[in-house]
Amino acid sequence: MKMIVAIVQDKDTNRLTDALSEHDYKSTKLSTRGGFLKEGNTTLMIGVDDEDVDQVLEIIEENCSKRDQMVAPISPMGGNADSYIPKPVKVEVGGANVFVLPIESFFHF
Amino acid sequence: MKMIVAIVQDKDTNRLTDALSEHDYKSTKLSTRGGFLKEGNTTLMIGVDDEDVDQVLEIIEENCSKRDQMVAPISPMGGNADSYIPKPVKVEVGGANVFVLPIESFFHF
Amino acid sequence: MKMIVAIVQDKDTNRLTDALSEHDYKSTKLSTRGGFLKEGNTTLMIGVDDEDVDQVLEIIEENCSKRDQMVAPISPMGGNADSYIPKPVKVEVGGANVFVLPIESFFHF
Ligand code: NI
Ligand code: NI
Ligand code: NI
Repeated sequence: MKMIVAIVQDKDTNRLTDALSEHDYKSTKLSTRGGFLKEGNTTLMIGVDDEDVDQVLEIIEENCSKRDQMVAPISPMGGNADSYIPKPVKVEVGGANVFVLPIESFFHF
Repeated sequence: MKMIVAIVQDKDTNRLTDALSEHDYKSTKLSTRGGFLKEGNTTLMIGVDDEDVDQVLEIIEENCSKRDQMVAPISPMGGNADSYIPKPVKVEVGGANVFVLPIESFFHF
Repeated sequence: MKMIVAIVQDKDTNRLTDALSEHDYKSTKLSTRGGFLKEGNTTLMIGVDDEDVDQVLEIIEENCSKRDQMVAPISPMGGNADSYIPKPVKVEVGGANVFVLPIESFFHF
């Protein structure tokens, strides 16, 4: 058995836990701050059998990979608003840091 | 040394940490949500010497095992209240998921 | 690779994470309560390469060690205030409990 510790962005958390549930993987969410990713991240702990590690990693990659998103920029203050044409800008979102830890034993009471 | 990670129901947390303290085991509580157990759980991290793992597991089992509880049901809305005799219903409470992780080294500064 | 789990006092957390960032180590903060240290602690998870473990431990020791602090005592209620000369008292602050856990694999998506 392994303990998968995944630090993901808040905005990807629900999609990830939904995808994990669909495949019958249960995860526990820890409130986390700062660090590996920009502000607003969540740490998930997922206990899985050895043979399921690859599938869980795939589900995390599918739902949390770093990707570009086009967002409308804030229009500049005090500029000449008439001549200003806002262009969407690319912003990087998502990303996941995932640790696979060995487990010596597991108990369910 | 081992790190015991125990995910237990909120309602069992204080009783468990009290029982652990009585036996001189110190635990750190993490705020957790969802997952292994129904809503409202807490994750405890407990660092213990190898020879103490069994006792800590026993204390967790004694204080957090899944068990049935009889609760008074909500009376049905809009039914015939005169003929309704509320019977207590069985509800499952408690339960713990416990992982024992190896530790390579421990430091106290 | 190793996962360093450090439980430190809240008051030392920012200084520690700043020192870690200066040396390019990223940490994830977990909100924790009770346990290893007196009220008000934070748990940091830091994923590091094997050869960096010693430096991270040193940074934690430098910034979070147990130490004495002189604090002004509260003046006693209802005593003879004229004859009372407050003497600063020594209080122990800080301290860290640090676990080094093995990691089987690490992924960044
Ligand atoms: Ni699928
Ligand atoms: Ni006992
Ligand atoms: Ni330095």
